[in-house]
Amino acid sequence: MATQINPPRGMRDFVPAEKRRRERVLSKIREAYTAHGFDEIETPVVEDSDRLHSGMGGDNEKLSFAIMRRGLDDAALQDAADQADPLALSDLGLRFDLTVPLARFMATHRGTLPNVFRSLHIGPVWRAERPQKGRYRQFVQCDIDILGEPGALAEAELLVAGSAALASLGLTSCTIRVNDRRLLNALLEWCGFAEEHQPQALISIDKLDKIGTKGVVEELAQTDPEAAERIHQALNNWAEGIKAGIPLTTESILASLPEGLREQAAAVEAAESLGEVADAVQAGGGALSLVFDPTLVRGMGYYTGTIFEVAHPESGSSVGGGGRYDGMIGRFLGQDVPACGFSIGFERIVDLVSDLPEDEEEAVILLVDKKLSVGDVMRMKQSLLQPGRRIRVERRPKNVRGLLDRASAEGFTHVAHVRDAQVEDPSTITLEPLG
Amino acid sequence: MATQINPPRGMRDFVPAEKRRRERVLSKIREAYTAHGFDEIETPVVEDSDRLHSGMGGDNEKLSFAIMRRGLDDAALQDAADQADPLALSDLGLRFDLTVPLARFMATHRGTLPNVFRSLHIGPVWRAERPQKGRYRQFVQCDIDILGEPGALAEAELLVAGSAALASLGLTSCTIRVNDRRLLNALLEWCGFAEEHQPQALISIDKLDKIGTKGVVEELAQTDPEAAERIHQALNNWAEGIKAGIPLTTESILASLPEGLREQAAAVEAAESLGEVADAVQAGGGALSLVFDPTLVRGMGYYTGTIFEVAHPESGSSVGGGGRYDGMIGRFLGQDVPACGFSIGFERIVDLVSDLPEDEEEAVILLVDKKLSVGDVMRMKQSLLQPGRRIRVERRPKNVRGLLDRASAEGFTHVAHVRDAQVEDPSTITLEPLG
Repeated sequence: MATQINPPRGMRDFVPAEKRRRERVLSKIREAYTAHGFDEIETPVVEDSDRLHSGMGGDNEKLSFAIMRRGLDDAALQDAADQADPLALSDLGLRFDLTVPLARFMATHRGTLPNVFRSLHIGPVWRAERPQKGRYRQFVQCDIDILGEPGALAEAELLVAGSAALASLGLTSCTIRVNDRRLLNALLEWCGFAEEHQPQALISIDKLDKIGTKGVVEELAQTDPEAAERIHQALNNWAEGIKAGIPLTTESILASLPEGLREQAAAVEAAESLGEVADAVQAGGGALSLVFDPTLVRGMGYYTGTIFEVAHPESGSSVGGGGRYDGMIGRFLGQDVPACGFSIGFERIVDLVSDLPEDEEEAVILLVDKKLSVGDVMRMKQSLLQPGRRIRVERRPKNVRGLLDRASAEGFTHVAHVRDAQVEDPSTITLEPLG
Repeated sequence: MATQINPPRGMRDFVPAEKRRRERVLSKIREAYTAHGFDEIETPVVEDSDRLHSGMGGDNEKLSFAIMRRGLDDAALQDAADQADPLALSDLGLRFDLTVPLARFMATHRGTLPNVFRSLHIGPVWRAERPQKGRYRQFVQCDIDILGEPGALAEAELLVAGSAALASLGLTSCTIRVNDRRLLNALLEWCGFAEEHQPQALISIDKLDKIGTKGVVEELAQTDPEAAERIHQALNNWAEGIKAGIPLTTESILASLPEGLREQAAAVEAAESLGEVADAVQAGGGALSLVFDPTLVRGMGYYTGTIFEVAHPESGSSVGGGGRYDGMIGRFLGQDVPACGFSIGFERIVDLVSDLPEDEEEAVILLVDKKLSVGDVMRMKQSLLQPGRRIRVERRPKNVRGLLDRASAEGFTHVAHVRDAQVEDPSTITLEPLG
């Protein structure tokens, strides 16, 4: 059967070496998060279409894979054709993030969870994006969220735990850029953007990395040239400071704001809140440095307070991020639940982690004669089994050197050459180091 | 928003206690399989529709969830309506087992894998079955397969590793029933079933548990009354032995066969092969008892040799099974690859495992005053962090006893009550055992 033999477009297999690496990175992350008080949950990879398309997923909703209703009949097909609506045929879909399922999970289980629930949620998500380097259609997300805590303790615990996870992977050169949506709102207000133009203005500022100050200002000028000019000045004034890194303290934040803005109550409140978060992160032993970035927006419409994003010098795009999203979890629940989350870009992290120490384990090639009976092979394998050791049986090939080189590259540490006499007494088998 | 707040029909969330339990069971299984030389791989949960519907999945193909093609237009919808074929709208599907993806994986990666490849493959699969107790639409499969080894070494390594995994979970009262498809074929031949009736006859015998000897014989009599009568006698003769357990040795197997069958070359060959497997499993330290069951069929059409199934006294249905399927892997590869696999029924196992020892870890509730500053809370949390310990911060509620009882039920082992003076010097905080 001469079918094409690749995984589906944009999706990946993991051969043993890759799988091992991914699992080791995941287990480091899990360990750090668990120590800091987060409890792992699991949700199905599939959710009801209605929920996936309830407006909580932003643009990602458009990228979702739809699953067909079971038992479709001719009438249903004809209906969909008449309505020109493929989604009429779908009742389920693959999740495009872990936030929508978490919101649904909270609605389902709220009664059995602690009032402040610290969730660790790891799993694959799917997006029908154009596959390209570093972008896949199935990829792993790794989220922590604190639900039910309205104060800065949530931000502080998330940032300390997230930093600890990244540091445990050796990624101590990460920097966390922090901002507050309330400060962005105060900025837009101060610039004079009408309320109905503010969401669009945020979307423009979010493109700063891609289209530069000039591009952002040009976009904004189309709706309000005067307000755009005030943003222009603010961006110019910030440029140097952002490059050097504005310390995340209430004083530095206020000092960096344009005169007139820095006196406003909303701005002062946000700056004080960020200062409190920074102090608490330091008190909690936060392993990564925090800086203030007044231009940080983070795309999603649902953020309401603190937002943060993790940068790594070797990665062009962010390797993690999150923020406070107080309005959202309550939507399925019919009651407000303050919420704040931090997400690690697992696929990017896996590529950055280079030097995780190998587990201290013996991996042994048991090299046996081709003619040896199956029973003898099994007896020798059994005699070598012990905790912390793995054993692979290999029948002796012509090219022993080739086999051992390859085994060594696969991470095997020892070889046991079996000689005839040892079949009678496996206790005489010795392990020789490989490579 | 008053939407329904459950996971999709037949699918499950796992709250922290359940998730922890599942992960502990999985990690025991992983540990055993890795020690025995199996290497874990991962494949996407989605495969191309063509592959999912290539006939390798038996009846499960009909239960697969189809994913809609992206960018469907009116013409495609109208086409599907005209053809009355919903699947014309689908190019991908959720996998219904791990065997089809493994076959595809081998075709993709054969060149980079060892000649004899021992695969460990764990992950969710989906089937649109009617949800009922113990049957879900998303559930985890946990497979080991040896690809490229034609001899009994494959069966022996699988059975020893599988037994070790089950034993490590305390499930030592499992029994493995073993048979050989070649023996079943010889039986049907000897009974006189025409070759074209043999597959249907196997399907009937496979229902023995459900419809009893009488039911099986009645079904068979519809195609060939004379052959059915011979089966009838054989089944009657076996009944006592199967109940008592026929030892898995060449001699016992042959002795249990009807006269006339036991003399045939194919039967002798199969009995010798089963005896070799049994000896090798014993030499390899197999932790579970093996018995011969001449009525074991295992539904799938693709088995070609040894087949096995794991029974547990507390479970009505099998908790694992597998066998040799030499013809199948080669289908995507265009070249024959001998293959043998063993699958653990993970969802059933999780329910059976009752007494896994809890990890030796300290789980601490850090109980702080409601008025304490976030910075102080974080400093105290930081001072208590250490390897092997997890810490959850709780603000002191009115009902402290209630909170601690609940924490204890969640597996927390200690509480740290923070008094005012300790805010200045966290080193004076002590842990008190809970419960």
